[in-house]
Amino acid sequence: MKKALAIDVGGTKIYNTIVDERGEIISEIEKYPTPKTYVEIISIFKEIISKYEKEVDVIAFSTCGSVSNTNDKILGSTGNIASEYPQTDFKSLSTKPVFVENDANCAAWAEHIIGASKGMPYSVMLTLGTGVGGGIILDNKLYKGKSGAAGEMHFKMSRDKHRKCTCGSWDCFEAYASGTGLKKTAEEISGNLEITTYDVIDGIKNNNKQMIEIFNRWQEDLLNGIIGLADIFDPDVVVLSGSMAQFVDTDYLTEKVNEEIVTQPTKVVKASAGNYSGMIGAALLALGVGV
Amino acid sequence: MKKALAIDVGGTKIYNTIVDERGEIISEIEKYPTPKTYVEIISIFKEIISKYEKEVDVIAFSTCGSVSNTNDKILGSTGNIASEYPQTDFKSLSTKPVFVENDANCAAWAEHIIGASKGMPYSVMLTLGTGVGGGIILDNKLYKGKSGAAGEMHFKMSRDKHRKCTCGSWDCFEAYASGTGLKKTAEEISGNLEITTYDVIDGIKNNNKQMIEIFNRWQEDLLNGIIGLADIFDPDVVVLSGSMAQFVDTDYLTEKVNEEIVTQPTKVVKASAGNYSGMIGAALLALGVGV
Repeated sequence: MKKALAIDVGGTKIYNTIVDERGEIISEIEKYPTPKTYVEIISIFKEIISKYEKEVDVIAFSTCGSVSNTNDKILGSTGNIASEYPQTDFKSLSTKPVFVENDANCAAWAEHIIGASKGMPYSVMLTLGTGVGGGIILDNKLYKGKSGAAGEMHFKMSRDKHRKCTCGSWDCFEAYASGTGLKKTAEEISGNLEITTYDVIDGIKNNNKQMIEIFNRWQEDLLNGIIGLADIFDPDVVVLSGSMAQFVDTDYLTEKVNEEIVTQPTKVVKASAGNYSGMIGAALLALGVGV
Repeated sequence: MKKALAIDVGGTKIYNTIVDERGEIISEIEKYPTPKTYVEIISIFKEIISKYEKEVDVIAFSTCGSVSNTNDKILGSTGNIASEYPQTDFKSLSTKPVFVENDANCAAWAEHIIGASKGMPYSVMLTLGTGVGGGIILDNKLYKGKSGAAGEMHFKMSRDKHRKCTCGSWDCFEAYASGTGLKKTAEEISGNLEITTYDVIDGIKNNNKQMIEIFNRWQEDLLNGIIGLADIFDPDVVVLSGSMAQFVDTDYLTEKVNEEIVTQPTKVVKASAGNYSGMIGAALLALGVGV
């Protein structure tokens, strides 16, 4: 059975493991804090690759940032990681083939092959974490657009410049439906700038009225974004993953989305391929596993 | 050379002509007011088809409403046309093959084959008329979604229920970027409920400050929608058609969109396949003309 060395590169952590062509993790998950400098990042890549490359057929990176349609380089900037990182020459890191894909796209592919959107040709996946990632599967293929950068969830939620987004623009879906967005909504409703997402989640558990109001406002923004995507894509399913997805009421969202869309009924579900779906998806894509 | 009898069905007019496989209109354009009743609509279809079906290889309908992936039936309701219209059994109307597609999709295909998005694999077309139609071409193929209904431009422009859309929901892109949206924006800014889109357009020509403000607010809403679509699709081009497109400053929109998107540069252009692009696109699709 073919195997990939999967490496997940995020702003705070780098993970690696070995994944087989069934999408099963077959070695221990290793974890490093993402170093501040580019030189140290490359040095970790080299250490991981030299340790495992003999055991695998391909090296599969799941990374922050948009990735080219040739799956070998990063397009544009990547936010919370060393500014030289997009210049990484991935192909030169190993004598084995090296494959690179955006982490949200990888996670969407893992869901499509072994998870919540398995058997469904059309899906949109939203990764609700510190930011919001997007992965789009159309007709059983990962949708990448003209350059590879498609699936950015920065459509606007407001006509008036109300809330700044990390991308530099205003009122993007990411600025509302992310964990950062929940904190911001909590600040706006409570007037307390020290409030955290944990306070909101704790408050819900303790039946705190204001915390429930805050969460519901956040979920309503998420709902509004999903309605737009469902009307644009007419998907079989919208999959929610990431740290915030666990708190969402997908039955409520499915009902409300179907009340509002003008396309045909869809459903909203939680991801099921697990916490390491980025690495699994990268491995499956790198190994050419599709439907 | 193969030919199609093209029939365009809208809420107010029914057009027909003959189009060849180069996308050229080769007979007179005929026009009927769309009758109120379903029986009269079918009777016009039969009249047109019996007159021309012997001359052509296929009958190609460009119609209001979403059309199934099998290109033979209408999904859901269609707004301003007899309520039974979606039940039309198109295949039974002729002994020749009958092909049906949504009018915005047809127009997008015409632009893709002979118009403004020719040679570009990824495009989003917005038809800015009384409403807003959407047609999406991805990897040189018309994108239809799981059921055929994709490309509905009802994503939300506001978090607060501010403006009702004809679809029954609130604050859809269509409710802002359409001609109806311009009138509504004009009403809100001027306080005059009798104001028309013509007043705004006339006012701009006469350098009227308030009319310019109204138009710019409308164009800003259009811009915001295009930014979201460009981030989602990473398209080569966004094409604007319909009666409102002529007033838009596409150079300005291209510049602003590229300032704000996090994907790779795109451009905004006006459609160039002409007023009958719906019939041309239907004919090209029905005749199997692609890239």
